Amino acid sequence: MVQVKSVIAAVKAEAAKVDEYMRADLARLQPETDELLLEVLDYGLLNGGKRVRPLLAVFASRLCGNKDENVYRLGCAFEYLHAATLFHDDIIDNSETRRGKRSVYKQFGTIAAILAGDYLHALAMSTVGRLAGAKGLEIFCNATTGMVDGEFMQLRNATKHNLTELEYYDAIMMKTGLLIAAACEVGAIYGGGTPEQVKALRDYGANLGCAFQIIDDLLDYLGDPAKTGKVVGNDLVEGKVTLPLILAFNCAGERDKKRLAALLGTKDKRSSNVQEVSGIIESVGGFAAARKEAVAAVENAIAALRIFPTHNNYYERNVLEGLAHYVLTRDK
Amino acid sequence: MVQVKSVIAAVKAEAAKVDEYMRADLARLQPETDELLLEVLDYGLLNGGKRVRPLLAVFASRLCGNKDENVYRLGCAFEYLHAATLFHDDIIDNSETRRGKRSVYKQFGTIAAILAGDYLHALAMSTVGRLAGAKGLEIFCNATTGMVDGEFMQLRNATKHNLTELEYYDAIMMKTGLLIAAACEVGAIYGGGTPEQVKALRDYGANLGCAFQIIDDLLDYLGDPAKTGKVVGNDLVEGKVTLPLILAFNCAGERDKKRLAALLGTKDKRSSNVQEVSGIIESVGGFAAARKEAVAAVENAIAALRIFPTHNNYYERNVLEGLAHYVLTRDK
Repeated sequence: MVQVKSVIAAVKAEAAKVDEYMRADLARLQPETDELLLEVLDYGLLNGGKRVRPLLAVFASRLCGNKDENVYRLGCAFEYLHAATLFHDDIIDNSETRRGKRSVYKQFGTIAAILAGDYLHALAMSTVGRLAGAKGLEIFCNATTGMVDGEFMQLRNATKHNLTELEYYDAIMMKTGLLIAAACEVGAIYGGGTPEQVKALRDYGANLGCAFQIIDDLLDYLGDPAKTGKVVGNDLVEGKVTLPLILAFNCAGERDKKRLAALLGTKDKRSSNVQEVSGIIESVGGFAAARKEAVAAVENAIAALRIFPTHNNYYERNVLEGLAHYVLTRDK
Repeated sequence: MVQVKSVIAAVKAEAAKVDEYMRADLARLQPETDELLLEVLDYGLLNGGKRVRPLLAVFASRLCGNKDENVYRLGCAFEYLHAATLFHDDIIDNSETRRGKRSVYKQFGTIAAILAGDYLHALAMSTVGRLAGAKGLEIFCNATTGMVDGEFMQLRNATKHNLTELEYYDAIMMKTGLLIAAACEVGAIYGGGTPEQVKALRDYGANLGCAFQIIDDLLDYLGDPAKTGKVVGNDLVEGKVTLPLILAFNCAGERDKKRLAALLGTKDKRSSNVQEVSGIIESVGGFAAARKEAVAAVENAIAALRIFPTHNNYYERNVLEGLAHYVLTRDK
């Protein structure tokens, strides 16, 4: 197994490079762009994010043999699209905070958050179109439309308590998997990968994205609010059914099933029910089962990389494997 | 001078064709797209719009010699982007109605309007990238970021009463001119136009866009609410300073200037002041001067087309000239 710590040190240096390119973009835009808009972009982009998506694009590209520096610009496009999504999502979810500070819409208002998101959308698309061609743009845009489609699905699922595992996977693939898979796939295309390599990196990304979201959903129940910055059981309170609960329903006996259904039905009291629901999920093994699925997804992600021989790409493969393992260890 | 009526009949048939292609797009998306999202798109797109931007792309392309049918798909991209902008603008401006029915956000809510706008954004970008290449995409994205930039400028200008004519032209170029110019320019590129032809069509579009917006701003004071569907003097009430008012300030004597400044300062009473402000603008010739500038912009637009010899493109040039004249005659 790879050393998670050394990988983290390596990617931190690369993430700083991504930030550098984003700063350069903002500086380039500065003379001809509205001051307030620039302030919003600066605030919303340069906030200590982990730059997972840009890094995936960069390392996917390198794993396919690319060595140029321009790939950081391509990476930035994925951060721009991700940030655009967050600007709009925080309005939609009425989220007060993001990465430990006020969300863009709370800080600058809804109008600025909508518009700045649209701006980043266009900046992201033009960057990908310029660097990764029509094919890269198509994948990028499909990830965007897929995310929106997933949000609509989620709006409908919010009132649905009997969500199946398959529906859950569809939803997290659209919400998180598509963009992460796109970062890997477009990176691979930019890097000149063969069709087989491009497919392998897309598979890696799709599995990684699913693992990432499953862990996110586990942290919602089990995370330390001081680290996650989120209230425990928030998904449950909002009526979102995630994997631990679905698997708990699958494993539970009749009595626990009835009790869970009753607890989910009482919308007003959901906050006070979090502990009891969490207790039932734990006792029937729902959390352990969900974690097992995240581990399996990470294993699938790593297995997809096997087609890349390690003797020429030891470092890049190591980083991508390390990122996959990191997903399982994260606590925020 | 061209016959406005015959041009309108011709473009109506072409607009119907654009609608046909949009319907085909929605039908193609239907199997894999959320039902509610499709309903929002259908509602927001197929609403009897005039399809000015798609038509400009189609006729600019044809004027450069293109004869294929795919150009309608390119045209649709401009309607998608335009609609995305309207979905978001109606949230921002809190507009209840659009083209005589409830705006998307009033009908389906803010969340659906934000998301459906994002969806159309991505659909528009991928279409342009696919059909008009990296150069076309760059122009398209620059129009998008420019529009956002213009909105931010407008947010700041809203509290500014001494807007200069130059600032006004900058603002309307960003708000309306850029996208109309982009439709013409990208259409010309798609049509295989020479650099000189592409530039001519961009100039045509930029002038047309400005004329379009000046007339819009005139209609805000002088239009028939039964036709425009808008309250008279809405811009004034919202604190937006437009060309008639700027020119009135330029022409007015000291007494009228002072009176105008006083009327503009009293925010709460602006609605009841509309008639008096309008009276002063009229008496000092502000409306006539603004209209003169719209006429000049239309003349510039038409002059830009002179490089296209009429013997091979009589029909296309005629339509584009007719569209320019139409801008001056519209009453809604």
